[in-house]
Formats: sequence, C-alpha cells, structure tokens
Amino acid sequence: MNYLLCYSPGAASMAVHWMLIEMGIQFETRLVDINVGNQRNPEYLRLNPSGRVPTLMVDGTPRHESAALLMLLAERHPEAGLAPEPGSAERAAWLELMIYLANTVLPAMRDWFYAASDGDPAGAEGVRALARRRIEEACDRLDTELADGRDYLVGGKLSTADFLAVVLMRWTRNMPRPALGWPHLARYIRGLRALPSFIELNAREGLTEWRNQDD
Amino acid sequence: MNYLLCYSPGAASMAVHWMLIEMGIQFETRLVDINVGNQRNPEYLRLNPSGRVPTLMVDGTPRHESAALLMLLAERHPEAGLAPEPGSAERAAWLELMIYLANTVLPAMRDWFYAASDGDPAGAEGVRALARRRIEEACDRLDTELADGRDYLVGGKLSTADFLAVVLMRWTRNMPRPALGWPHLARYIRGLRALPSFIELNAREGLTEWRNQDD
Repeated sequence: MNYLLCYSPGAASMAVHWMLIEMGIQFETRLVDINVGNQRNPEYLRLNPSGRVPTLMVDGTPRHESAALLMLLAERHPEAGLAPEPGSAERAAWLELMIYLANTVLPAMRDWFYAASDGDPAGAEGVRALARRRIEEACDRLDTELADGRDYLVGGKLSTADFLAVVLMRWTRNMPRPALGWPHLARYIRGLRALPSFIELNAREGLTEWRNQDD
Repeated sequence: MNYLLCYSPGAASMAVHWMLIEMGIQFETRLVDINVGNQRNPEYLRLNPSGRVPTLMVDGTPRHESAALLMLLAERHPEAGLAPEPGSAERAAWLELMIYLANTVLPAMRDWFYAASDGDPAGAEGVRALARRRIEEACDRLDTELADGRDYLVGGKLSTADFLAVVLMRWTRNMPRPALGWPHLARYIRGLRALPSFIELNAREGLTEWRNQDD
C-alpha cells in the first residue's frame, strides 16, 4: 500500500497526517501551503479540483475528504485498531460521531474562517455568528460526553474520532471561546496532545502553537 | 436485528426509510412530524437530544445521523450489496461521496431551510445566499460526475450514496434552481425515482410531490 499525503500545516490534513504517524506505516508527504495559495496551483487542482487539503494519493489515485480518509485508513489497516470493528457494540457510536464531526463541526469551522471568501462578504457576519454558535454547541456536546472522565471519545481507546475532534478543537484556539475553556474537553485535549504521535506531528508540520508546553 | 425508525415525511429520515424498504427487511416506524414540532416532545428528546430526525432504534439503542445510519445498515446487511465491499476499488470513492454529501450538501440544506431559526434572523439572508451557492455548486459537481451516462453514483450499482443524494436533491424542488434543471442530474434522478422502493417510500410517507408522474 502506497500513500502520499498532500498537506498544509495545521489544516484539516493534520488529522490524516496524525493517523499516518500513529500507525507507524510508511508514507510520503507533499507540502501544499494554503497560506500562500498553493492549493490553487494547476498541478494541485488536477489532484483535487476543489482546491482543498488534504489529498491522499492511495496507490496512485487521489482521494479526498478528511473524515472519509480516516475511515478508509482504519479499514485498510485494521491491525492498527483505530476504529471499532464492524459488528462491535461501539461501531454505531463511532460512525455517528465521525459523521457528526464531519457534518456539523467541520462545516461550521469552514464558515467561521472562510465566510467572506466562500460567499458574499456582505453576508459574512451572519454566517460567522451562526458558525460560532454551532461550534460552541459542539463544544458543549463533546464536554458533556467527556464528563464521565473518559480519555477517548469512543470505545475506551484511541480512534479516528479523536484525531478529527482534536484537530477541529485546535482551530478554536483564537476564537472567542477556545475549546480549552470547557473543563472536560480541556482534560481530554491535554491527554491527546501528550501522545508521542501528536508531538511528532507538530514537529513535522513545524507547528509551535497549542501544544501542552505552550499553555 | 431489530429496527424502529422515527421519521418525518420528506425529511432526512427519508433516505434511511428508503434503504430499509429497498433491503426488504422487517422494521417498524414511528411518525415524528417535524411540521408540527413533534421532534421537541420530551419523549422524543430522550431518544434524540438534538431534536432531529431520523432516530433509528437499533436493537433498542437510539442511533442518529442519516449518513451514519446508511453506512451502519450497509455494514450490518452486506447481502443487500448497498455499499462497495471493504477493500474493493470503489470503496474509497463511496466513502468520499458519502462524506461529501454529509458535510457539504446536507449542512447547506440545513442553512437554506433553517437559517432564521438556527441563528439570528438578522443574519439569515447572508447564510441562505451562501447555502444556495454551495447547493448549486454541488449540483454542478454531481451533474459533471453523471455526465458519462451512469445510472448510479458509485460502482455501477445502487448504493447508500444514491439514497442520500436523491433525498437531498428532492429538497431543491422549490429552490430557485431545482436539481431537475441540470440535464445529467435530471436523468439520474428520474432513473432512481422509477425504483419500486422509491414509489413505495412515497406512498408510505404520504408524499405526492416530486415523483416521476408529477413532472
């Protein structure tokens, strides 16, 4: 199995990058820096017509959508145990949470950061206000789920849902109410950030914000 | 396996309802009419704290998120063949499309219909304008994918992606640009609407709009 991850530091690609590192498998990376617009290079647009990251080249074929890539990798590498097995009691909860993160939290984040460029700047304030409300509702919900003291979101062990959730929560760090302001969510985030794979991920992406030592 | 679907006619639950009918398995239904606010009944909120449909009771446990339920049912009933098998060439494309529909089209639809109640009505115009743009971009994309004349979105056969896509496209019927205005998408939709399971679905939900005989 051959993987090449096109990523931009700190972007949605970070969840897939984290998973690849955690699995300890071989993969290559290509930097597509969205901060300088490299996702709109014609060469990259051939791999990903929507001009977003990540793209994961899987055995030479470009694949997209972070949540789908996490699910695909979990399926291709069952030995890594990063998703509950099909048929297990936790499987339905995992599917539900992956979709919730993908269809509620992720789009709200896109609205928060890109309202003025995705749509008419005149309407951006209303879009961002609704996005903020939804993101804070998501933090409420995750905090409630984590109130029982669990270290991982699903099934008592690390899964793709944690990679996606923590990367999304990282994006709240400069929002009016950062995720670290919710007590159970903060404990959960600090636990995940202590993983060697997260520390390695930040080093490889050159990120120096929102690590445990930065608090 | 025991299923009870809480649904509202024409809502997101319709995709799950369609799949259950198509599979020909035994299931029960409970009407939760969102047009009269029944999703906010305390009894229903215990099953689904977010007050949305569908809820699918799976062996007595409430499960949510349409896309996740479709994926779960495909996994629990592999004999129905409604998703490419894990490890198959089409699997990655199916996962990507399910996530795309769930995280791009579905949230935009929510914005279009619920901008004023989910958020501040003062900002609703901007939210709806961006939602409309995204929905029309999705129609462009699906129309392009279907331009090769295919009858189904993935893998040359009916899958959960078709249930979700067609139900989402149904919601455009009273929008400024209904999905039937895109030529390849229209051909695809008419093909899916001709399925006996879709006709039965409309009969069971009491829906008399947007059927092939209504055009």
